[in-house]
This record gives sequence, C-alpha cells and structure tokens, in this order.
Amino acid sequence: MERVYNFSAGPSALPVEVLETAQKEMLCYGDTGMSVMEMSHRSAAFADILAQTKADYKELMQVPDNYEILFLQGGGSTQFSMIPLNLMTDHHRADYIQTGNWAKKAYQEAVKVGDAKVIASSEDKTYTYIPKFDASLMRNDIDYLYICVNNTIYGTRFRPDNLPTVPANVPLVADMSSNILSEVYDVSKFGLIFAGAQKNMGPAGVVAVIIRKDLLGRAAVDIPAMLNYQIHADKDSCYNTPPCYSIYICGLVYKWLKKLGGVPAMEAINKEKAAKLYDFLDNSKLFKGTVVPEARSLMNVPFVTGDADLDAQFVKESKAAGLENLKGHRTVGGMRASIYNAMPMAGVDALIDFMKRFEMAH
Amino acid sequence: MERVYNFSAGPSALPVEVLETAQKEMLCYGDTGMSVMEMSHRSAAFADILAQTKADYKELMQVPDNYEILFLQGGGSTQFSMIPLNLMTDHHRADYIQTGNWAKKAYQEAVKVGDAKVIASSEDKTYTYIPKFDASLMRNDIDYLYICVNNTIYGTRFRPDNLPTVPANVPLVADMSSNILSEVYDVSKFGLIFAGAQKNMGPAGVVAVIIRKDLLGRAAVDIPAMLNYQIHADKDSCYNTPPCYSIYICGLVYKWLKKLGGVPAMEAINKEKAAKLYDFLDNSKLFKGTVVPEARSLMNVPFVTGDADLDAQFVKESKAAGLENLKGHRTVGGMRASIYNAMPMAGVDALIDFMKRFEMAH
Repeated sequence: MERVYNFSAGPSALPVEVLETAQKEMLCYGDTGMSVMEMSHRSAAFADILAQTKADYKELMQVPDNYEILFLQGGGSTQFSMIPLNLMTDHHRADYIQTGNWAKKAYQEAVKVGDAKVIASSEDKTYTYIPKFDASLMRNDIDYLYICVNNTIYGTRFRPDNLPTVPANVPLVADMSSNILSEVYDVSKFGLIFAGAQKNMGPAGVVAVIIRKDLLGRAAVDIPAMLNYQIHADKDSCYNTPPCYSIYICGLVYKWLKKLGGVPAMEAINKEKAAKLYDFLDNSKLFKGTVVPEARSLMNVPFVTGDADLDAQFVKESKAAGLENLKGHRTVGGMRASIYNAMPMAGVDALIDFMKRFEMAH
Repeated sequence: MERVYNFSAGPSALPVEVLETAQKEMLCYGDTGMSVMEMSHRSAAFADILAQTKADYKELMQVPDNYEILFLQGGGSTQFSMIPLNLMTDHHRADYIQTGNWAKKAYQEAVKVGDAKVIASSEDKTYTYIPKFDASLMRNDIDYLYICVNNTIYGTRFRPDNLPTVPANVPLVADMSSNILSEVYDVSKFGLIFAGAQKNMGPAGVVAVIIRKDLLGRAAVDIPAMLNYQIHADKDSCYNTPPCYSIYICGLVYKWLKKLGGVPAMEAINKEKAAKLYDFLDNSKLFKGTVVPEARSLMNVPFVTGDADLDAQFVKESKAAGLENLKGHRTVGGMRASIYNAMPMAGVDALIDFMKRFEMAH
C-alpha cells in the first residue's frame, strides 16, 4: 500500500524521515540493546533523549532562560484545568477570548475554578474571524488572559503581529496546539504556551508546556500533584513515568525541523503552501474559503462549495484519489485541509490539482 | 547491537514479536496508507484498533459486562487523584493498606480529597511482607478500600487467594500496574482495577482502568473534566485525543498474549520463571531474597548479597554480560530482577547462570 496524503486535523501526518528512523530503531536504539519503549525513564539513555529533546525544542522556539519546558500527559484538555488551577490563584479572575470550540472548552474548565469571563468572541459568525482586541475589554486584576492562537476547526489564527497586547503584569496564556513550530512567535510575549503534540510535533499523548518560571509555585498545595506545574518542573518532567516514546518521536521531529532550517525556514514553506491553496480558493468559481483573509490559518484551511451534496461527493472522490481526511468538522461542514509542517508541497499541489479537476467536472 | 535481557522495573521489556509488528507497520498500517501515529482518533481505522484492543483486554481479564474499560492518560499517579475525586463522594472516607511507596503516594493524594486512613501497613519492615488483613480493621461507612496488589519496589504481592475480603457495599480498589495480566485475578472481586501500561502491557503513557459501572457518575460536577471517569466512559475513552499509538501497542501485546493461551497460560510460565529464581535464591550461599515467602511477587524479585560493594559489583558485571537494569530501588538497595510477562524463560536462565558464576567467583 502506498502512503496517502493525510490532511487530518490531528493526529496528523508525520515526516516520513521521522517514521523511517523510528522504524529502524524500533528493536534497538543505539547501543542500548532495547527499544525506546522498553527503557526505564530513569536510565541514562532515556535521560539523554529527554535532555536533547528539551534542548532542541528550546532552540527551535527560542525559549528564553526564564522559562521552563515540561512534557506532560493529558493533552490540551488537561491544560484547560491546570492553567486555572495553577494560575488563577491571586485575583481568582481570568479573561478569555473565545475564538472556537477549544477556547470555549478551556473557559468552561476555568469557570469551575474561579471567576472566568469571555471578554471577546467570534461565535456570532461561526468563529470565522478573530475578534478585535482592545485592552479596555480586559477587567482589572486578572491573573491571565487566555487565547487559542490557531483554531483548528475554524481555520483562523492570531498572527504573530496581531497578538493581544497585555500589560506586563498580565500573563498571556496560549493554546498553540495546532500551529506550534509553524511560524515564528516571540515566546517572551507569553506567560505560558502549551501544545498537544499530535498536530505538528509527534504522536498524541504528550503536551509540551513552556511556562515562565515566575508562574510556577502559585497553585494551592491541595490540588492533585499531577496537575501542579511546580511538581513537574522540580522533577524535570519525570515526577511520574513520562510518555517516553512520544517524547522520543517529538525529538525526532525537532531534529528533522532543525535540519530543515528551523522555524523560520518552516514558516517560509508553510506560507508558500497556504498561499497556493488560498489563492486557488480565492480564484475558484466552485470552492470558497470560509475565513476572512486577515485571520486565515496557515495550518487549517476550511472550504465549501456551498452545496452539501457536492461537498460530500468531493470528500468521497478525493479519498479515492489518495487525499485522506478532507471532511470538515461537523460544526462547519464542507471540507478542511490541514496542511501541517509534515505535509509536503507535493501534497498541497496534489490537492489543488484534484480540486481543479473536480471544478471542471462540476 | 544485540538485544539485551532487560530486567527494568518499568518501562520494561516488550515481546519481540510485538516490536517487530510495530516496526513492519510503522509507515503504513494495513491499507490505510499511514502510520497509526498519524491516524485521526475519529477515523474508522483507529476506531477498529480501539474496539479490538478493548475487546481483547476484556477477554483476557474476563471482565464481566457490568464493568467499563477505559484507556486514559496520566499514569497511575493521576489515578491516585481520580479515585478519591470520583469515589470518595458518599461518606467522604476511604481506607488504605500501605504496602509500599505507591500505596503511600495514593494515600497522600486521597488525603487532599477526604478522610483517608491507613488501616494496615508493612512499613515497619521496609514493606517486605503483606500485612494480615482483618475486616475489623476497616472503619464503618467507607467509600472504598484501596490496595496495591503488586509492589514493584519491594517485590511483594497480594496473591489472588489472599485478597482482602470486603463486604458487598465496599468496593475494593486496586493498583495492578506491575502484575496486570500476569496471573488470574477475579475481576468481580474488585470495584476498580487500574494498571499503567509500562510494565506488562505496552509503552508508558496509557493506563487501563476497569471500573464497575455503578461507580461511575459519583464525582462532583466541578472536578476537572479530564479527571471524571463518567466523562471518559460516555465518550468511550475519546473525550479528548487518546494516546492512540500506546493503545495500539497494548493491542499488539494483548494479541500476543491471547496467542500464547491467555492469562492462565501466562501464569503458568510466570510461576515457573519465578520459582526457578526463588529456588536459586533460597539455596544460594551468597544471594538472599528480601521478601517473606508467602508474599513474594511473581514479577519483581529483589535480592541482596548483604554486602553493598559486592551488590554494586554484581550490577556492573551483569550489565557487561547483557543483563540490564538489575540495580535495586534506592529504598531497598541490592538488586531487583523484574521478570514481567515479556521476559522469556531464557532471560531468567541467563540471570541464574550469571548468579551461579558470580557466586562461585566470590
């Protein structure tokens, strides 16, 4: 069976080179005589893997020294709870910008912990835009402002030049799960950035957290140990057995990305991939993007024909042509092409070619 | 590099056949054209993997129909919190038997939630025995009794014929991380059994929970969604993106175990492996097991020479001989051989041979 072009929104395509290395090392990693899956997390071999993975992530994201990097379990959904439990501890108040389902879910967990408020939302237009941010929307004395930088389902993003500007005493907390490492964001603008691995970094089961060190140690002592950032930081992500193999695969992805030229080089490629697809959509008589141009994601590109039956036919025929997982999320309908870092230009070209043929036929 | 015999306490050795299948399928699973790591957790292919894995676990463990099976993240350490948050909700009281570090950690998390009490402990003798259980030790009106069935660090276990007998209205809650699937336990005796995968089931990053259905839905509504068993049960372990690849590897291990004849066949092999090693220890003039005979684990066998320098020499020389990770836990010292399901008889034989040679030389 040939490999397909996999446009899944997540878990999603990984670089072939990464999979080939994992395949080669499956029964024996280096001179250890065992698989990475079989290694004690306290072994020297795994300690090296973890340290290198962390160092590479730090380098790729240009993480300043006053931040800690953690590799945790439980995905973004656990972060939705950890963030208020660890950070909403001074004023017990935090503001949320609601740009999609995931931001909403994060807010719903925060409400369980304290006084969380949605101060801006694009729900009125099915999250097809990023609401204008004005610092006057923020309440006084908040513990943080929360955003979801890239909205996987709706295909919008806060661009690096369009992040909310917050005062120095208000940490900006960001879910970057679906566009981490895809273009350059200045980490120093954030108090905390988390990203589930399963879009741009590795397999599901690990979430990378970048947290400014002064935000550690703010949690109440009686929260579950596993939800306390400080405890994980004290043990360098090894308070309990970490998801070792998933961390190893992330490490391989980071090496692949470094070899490619790092995030700036990846950004150039991603912008070219996205521009090709958006240009085609803007000029198509059949297909139409669903997002306002200034808020378009580089990673997730939703589009429709305007005819639900035709959309369904497109999804079916594209699958037969080796283009997988193009069906849109049920809340948007139509199609969605997720073109993460690991999607090669050839995949985008194949998609556009197919769309052209489909358009001519209809 | 040849594969070593890996006596790690966890993460630990996996069956070679499992690793070979994973290697073969790394770039393309079946006719999907992609790796399992790249599959959407909502895809038909992954839904099949999850359903089959769950069915095989149910069959292997002979799980009655009134139990739910969940594959979650966060390891045993997250279960330490989930258990009291979900079950200590009626009388707000639970009793714990403390047979080692992990039972102690579980207790320490429970104390954060309600009135948890250690009603029996073997701490006085470095956890080298299982305390005698008498139902009169239990307090009235407890929500559950907690035990750690196999104590990885200390090498003790509650045998299937030596489990605490509890009244019908008191669920027995058990950590079976380090001896799950190693011998037959009657699931119907338990309210909840959890097991981190990284000893007998698969890679770190997934924990399998078997919970009696009447114990679902007892949690307060304001606990984090990710810590609520009911929410995971409602979504069949797909409330958020599950650790798909780790689940897939567990599935391969279950298939391997079924092919071998299931848990009864595995139990026979494990008993033979353990008996060989304990017999050797009981007859050795140099080495000595640290656990009282009636409480001995089939999985983790700690032993000492009585001379710390000689112990260190043994660990060093055994490593050079291709026997890895025989160093004991720092709280016990000496050596520990973890001989989980995936450790072949040949590995135990190689260890005993080495011990014989070492004994003759010293």
